[in-house]
Amino acid sequence: MAAPASLSGFPEWLPAERLVEMQVLDTLRHTFELHGFAALETRSVEPLEVLERKGDIDKEIFLLRRLHEDPATEDDGDSDAGRTLALRFDNTVPFARYVRERAGHLRFPFRRYQIQKVWRGERPQDGRFREFTQADIDVIGDGDLPFHYDLELPLVMAEALAALPIGQVRIHVNNRKLSEGFYRGLGLTDVTGVLREIDKLDKIGPAAVAKLLVERCGASAEQADAALALAAISGADASFADRVRALGVAHPLLDEGLAELTAVVEGAAARRPGSIVADLKIARGLDYYTGSVYESFLVGQEDLGSICSGGRYDNLATEGNRTHPGVGLSIGVSRLVSRIIGAGLVRATREVPTAVLVALIDEDHRLAADRLAAGLRSRDVPCEVAPAAVKYGKQIRYADRRGIPFVLFPQPDGTVEVRDIRSGEQVPVDPETWTPPAEDVRPRVVAGD
Amino acid sequence: MAAPASLSGFPEWLPAERLVEMQVLDTLRHTFELHGFAALETRSVEPLEVLERKGDIDKEIFLLRRLHEDPATEDDGDSDAGRTLALRFDNTVPFARYVRERAGHLRFPFRRYQIQKVWRGERPQDGRFREFTQADIDVIGDGDLPFHYDLELPLVMAEALAALPIGQVRIHVNNRKLSEGFYRGLGLTDVTGVLREIDKLDKIGPAAVAKLLVERCGASAEQADAALALAAISGADASFADRVRALGVAHPLLDEGLAELTAVVEGAAARRPGSIVADLKIARGLDYYTGSVYESFLVGQEDLGSICSGGRYDNLATEGNRTHPGVGLSIGVSRLVSRIIGAGLVRATREVPTAVLVALIDEDHRLAADRLAAGLRSRDVPCEVAPAAVKYGKQIRYADRRGIPFVLFPQPDGTVEVRDIRSGEQVPVDPETWTPPAEDVRPRVVAGD
Repeated sequence: MAAPASLSGFPEWLPAERLVEMQVLDTLRHTFELHGFAALETRSVEPLEVLERKGDIDKEIFLLRRLHEDPATEDDGDSDAGRTLALRFDNTVPFARYVRERAGHLRFPFRRYQIQKVWRGERPQDGRFREFTQADIDVIGDGDLPFHYDLELPLVMAEALAALPIGQVRIHVNNRKLSEGFYRGLGLTDVTGVLREIDKLDKIGPAAVAKLLVERCGASAEQADAALALAAISGADASFADRVRALGVAHPLLDEGLAELTAVVEGAAARRPGSIVADLKIARGLDYYTGSVYESFLVGQEDLGSICSGGRYDNLATEGNRTHPGVGLSIGVSRLVSRIIGAGLVRATREVPTAVLVALIDEDHRLAADRLAAGLRSRDVPCEVAPAAVKYGKQIRYADRRGIPFVLFPQPDGTVEVRDIRSGEQVPVDPETWTPPAEDVRPRVVAGD
Repeated sequence: MAAPASLSGFPEWLPAERLVEMQVLDTLRHTFELHGFAALETRSVEPLEVLERKGDIDKEIFLLRRLHEDPATEDDGDSDAGRTLALRFDNTVPFARYVRERAGHLRFPFRRYQIQKVWRGERPQDGRFREFTQADIDVIGDGDLPFHYDLELPLVMAEALAALPIGQVRIHVNNRKLSEGFYRGLGLTDVTGVLREIDKLDKIGPAAVAKLLVERCGASAEQADAALALAAISGADASFADRVRALGVAHPLLDEGLAELTAVVEGAAARRPGSIVADLKIARGLDYYTGSVYESFLVGQEDLGSICSGGRYDNLATEGNRTHPGVGLSIGVSRLVSRIIGAGLVRATREVPTAVLVALIDEDHRLAADRLAAGLRSRDVPCEVAPAAVKYGKQIRYADRRGIPFVLFPQPDGTVEVRDIRSGEQVPVDPETWTPPAEDVRPRVVAGD
């Protein structure tokens, strides 16, 4: 069904596919707003130094320059003169910049959702795009941010994901303090390095990771084994903490992380059983997280990778001595929609919004047909008038090919009949009051055939 | 109210402002879908040669390059290797490219709307941005496209604009065939040049334009006067054509253009009186239009410039011997929203979606408060639980500052009371069934104070 993209990594949907994406986005928006998250967008472009603020960037960034750039006039009233502009690679870093700049205009804790495109210059692969849509929720505080948001935010995402036609999703949680405390308790000091290698577990397996821990992070074989033993622990209740303690490592930060992760897992079990599990191999690469970290998987399709990730970041939005700790998660919408469509999990009931085609006797009757259509629209029914006064059979085919369920036929005597394309049944109706059955008024997204 | 943008030309709204923009976008989408336009998005990026396909580009284009570009690996399986990528400057050119590439997967006439960001590297000014949202509708044919769409499309836009809180909008129409036929009938052959100078009328006035026509387009003083006389003609009915004919110029293309423009003006008068006028100075610069051209103005705020423009393009989507003529219009949403907000024409009734704040006795009651909130959400009421179990006065202030109209108070005896923040009235309610009045469930955009 899908036409191949002409530019690798930049997906484009056909109209029926876009309907599926729209339903996904509308559903996410509805859930986010039910939880009080305000809509927000940030500009697509950031000065490069904003994106590089956290040091190391492992993301491939796209930089901008103007085709007709003219250095001679560039300084004149142009506030970005001399600054390198780049496309954002996620929604979190620009949001943190937005909060730093506008803190005086915002009220904290500030809850917002943000559904926007992001860009990464990575080599395109199956399910990995150069342009894709992310749907984020974050809550950000002023000075502090209560810990209960570390539980609330993934639960909102669990609810949002459960409302999508994608099967069961499970959110896996870990905690950076727990990992860091454990590594330090073990005597490993290159915490970032260890996290980076642990993050490769799913790709290269424990033996290869152990080797890297020894070679690159200064670990002994025993320390590497202990780090891998920690990463192997997971569970849906507080008993995971006993298994961590049984490894015999002690550190105050480990205690703090264990308490936080236990609170998230127990809180989730009380509120939404089965939605969240502890999974101590979750590392989230080199990102800016400082506490809870989340990844989410389609149950039975874990090979797709995480479809919703995030975490707690205490320092990302800090400006001078004003700190803005935050916690948030982001859904990779394009990857998800690509999978839903590619696997034929869902389909749209039609490829156009139109519920009714008003047929045309001849061009002289176009004004009358337009008025019939306007009447239907005034009753909130999407409709269009036939493009040309061709034979009725051809007008019916126009509707049929697009999945438009009804054709309205003005009769020579001034009455109107309506034909249900699916049954072929045609009956007289009152054009002033008739509307299609509620389930046919808008296209729907239903389970695939 | 607005915090200034930190990057000139890249606007960002505060949450209450974004609510206004969302209402504008939702209203446009609703109208477009009522008329059977399918949602579509194209990628943000095009190969530069696609954007330059129409020759002269007067738009300032942003080009992309990767931060870590590595020529050595760039060729390996990377389909855009060696191609210069650029950000789109409008939605029409990428849409035409999309149609050329996917014609075999589309059904014609193809009606789509597209609401996306576009980028131009122009010097930022009041109401002129480097990143802004455009909302487009187009219909595109296969081989031919009936003329009645030249009337239908601006009427759909007139209906969409009338549904916005922006006052009266008038669409001004001209026709390229009319202008070109008139200039050729006059003996002027540099039609593009003449259109370019006529396009400056509103900015520099007729005397200066006459001078440019003589200096740059080889016009005599009489020819320049005649071109200006044509540009001075406007009107809401077919009588404008008599005034054109009274100028004594004859050309077959002029006749064709006059017939088309008359049909648009008369059709609009029959369907939506006052929405569309003929205005023979509308030129639309160097664009790709071949017939009808449209600009739209806020009545009484014409100084803002056109807020919705477009036209007929017969050749933009042509590929080999397959032609795809189209007609469409585009609303400059960011400029419009910026004006609405800046002039205080509207305001949002609150800055968050939340209708109800569930107050918190102490942290031990958070689970119970979460359940109250979940009950409200199951009845489609946006709500949130208080961030912390501080004094009730402080929790009420949290709601008040955000414009959240109701606070739900769980009582020590297990009953629940609800307080209307605006009246201060507090009454017992049944938490299983209570919902706020319908008008308070979602934030609304209302006339400014």
